[in-house]
Amino acid sequence: MSKHYAIGIDLGGTNLRAALVSREGNIIKKIKEPSPGDVLESLYRVVESVYTDEVAGIGIGVAGLVDRKGGAVISSPNLPAVEGVSFVEAMHARFSVPIFIENDANVAALGEKWMGAGKEFDNFILLTLGTGIGGGIVYEGNLVNVSAEVGHTSINADGEKCPCGNTGCLESYASARAMISRAVSALEKGAESMLKECCKGNFYKLTPEDIYKSALEGDSLAREILREAGRYLGVGIANIINIMSPEAVILAGGLLGAWNIYVQEAMREASRRAFKELFDVVKIIPSSLGDEAGVVGAAGLVFKNSTS
Amino acid sequence: MSKHYAIGIDLGGTNLRAALVSREGNIIKKIKEPSPGDVLESLYRVVESVYTDEVAGIGIGVAGLVDRKGGAVISSPNLPAVEGVSFVEAMHARFSVPIFIENDANVAALGEKWMGAGKEFDNFILLTLGTGIGGGIVYEGNLVNVSAEVGHTSINADGEKCPCGNTGCLESYASARAMISRAVSALEKGAESMLKECCKGNFYKLTPEDIYKSALEGDSLAREILREAGRYLGVGIANIINIMSPEAVILAGGLLGAWNIYVQEAMREASRRAFKELFDVVKIIPSSLGDEAGVVGAAGLVFKNSTS
Repeated sequence: MSKHYAIGIDLGGTNLRAALVSREGNIIKKIKEPSPGDVLESLYRVVESVYTDEVAGIGIGVAGLVDRKGGAVISSPNLPAVEGVSFVEAMHARFSVPIFIENDANVAALGEKWMGAGKEFDNFILLTLGTGIGGGIVYEGNLVNVSAEVGHTSINADGEKCPCGNTGCLESYASARAMISRAVSALEKGAESMLKECCKGNFYKLTPEDIYKSALEGDSLAREILREAGRYLGVGIANIINIMSPEAVILAGGLLGAWNIYVQEAMREASRRAFKELFDVVKIIPSSLGDEAGVVGAAGLVFKNSTS
Repeated sequence: MSKHYAIGIDLGGTNLRAALVSREGNIIKKIKEPSPGDVLESLYRVVESVYTDEVAGIGIGVAGLVDRKGGAVISSPNLPAVEGVSFVEAMHARFSVPIFIENDANVAALGEKWMGAGKEFDNFILLTLGTGIGGGIVYEGNLVNVSAEVGHTSINADGEKCPCGNTGCLESYASARAMISRAVSALEKGAESMLKECCKGNFYKLTPEDIYKSALEGDSLAREILREAGRYLGVGIANIINIMSPEAVILAGGLLGAWNIYVQEAMREASRRAFKELFDVVKIIPSSLGDEAGVVGAAGLVFKNSTS
């Protein structure tokens, strides 16, 4: 008889998450810790903490370009610690169950399709909005096995250099890192803002939450930063709508907390830019699984691909 | 027994093409004329000129956003004459065979997959480079039924306004129209160039061929125009590589004649921008069906979708 559980791992950005997930898509047990320096040791530990004999396999979602056949991460501008790590080989040696690896935004898309906001859509794009910006594409009900690195498409051909090698990447204008970088730069130039008091002068400790809170209290620098990032996000959303004519764009990730300013500005901008006929029918909605989309989708990978 | 032929129509840009195509993908008979003002009357005429009793159906590839179910063109920034025309209904009333409609770059992609440069690839992007820039996506061997309007993705968020409503579209920087517009603008400002002699002072009659010829003869304005358009094309190619991690990018359309400057510059720029690991494995190659990809693919639509 088929084993009833899978372990989903999400090694996406600032946190490492793992969960024991049932075939019905329910999370039985979960664990979260800050993204580790020594990736494999941490993975062993979190997997052991949720492991049972009824585990059919382990799915790993990880930020960056993934070599599905080789079972490793080829390139990860935002999480260099995972580059070149042979996840599948190492995890299989330790746990003797089938191991699957996918890009983190791709597994989040799979999670939303299986158990979340994507259930009712056959064609949608998921964007993860956090430190970086990731993408996952679902077409005709299935995850499209492509890189989907929407955050690393240029929206300003002659713009800022990105660590990925490209210039003017969406991520450089619309991600949490972009917002922090704008805030730090303005504060260092002496801008008047509530943000000055946020972290005792150590601007590098600013978080997107600080910016959002100050914006809600009327701080004009904070509002401007969120609006600008939102506007650029709207450029990226319009681009992907014009390419993929999706039924929905599902937004996930830590920046969703700033929905009222950041995402609303993005929707306004996208509405001005995308083909009207495509924008009129697309739904731009938040993820319903939130931070758990990744672990659910990673576990879903196992059930989808494994027969054990 | 199944009928042995289909008629493929390509209403893509400056020309209307129609062809009688066999189930083996061979063109039996073809016709070409300038894109008409009265679209339906011209379609009736060209179809009648290649029609036989052995025609299983008619496939139409047309520039713009296509409503496949409704059988009409929703929006066509480059060919307004086709907007709102109920192609499928009108053609079916006249010819009593199944009629299929698709975006022109999508049928070109289908044509290349069936009989051309895409035969050996399961995942590729086709870009049509002409007056405008169109896109078609083949994934796992099949045409992806999406808008694929790569030419209308913004590569300069705050750039030039495009007739489609977006700002900074790839097409505004890398298409034939963009090249002509750059040339006219420079010549009107009095730039020194061989192009001045091309059309007896009527700069609006300039063609991409004029620019390419002058460039080959060493004209520096012409070279600069081709290089700049190529560089922006490279931005667009890198973007689509980072999203779709294709095995190939197949380039089609009238601008391929300028391969040595325009496309080579695009390849150089894309190589600087796309994820190295993706660029290293992608093949950037010319269409092998050339101007006939559209009619072949449009006929292919019939064989793919029809059982008669």
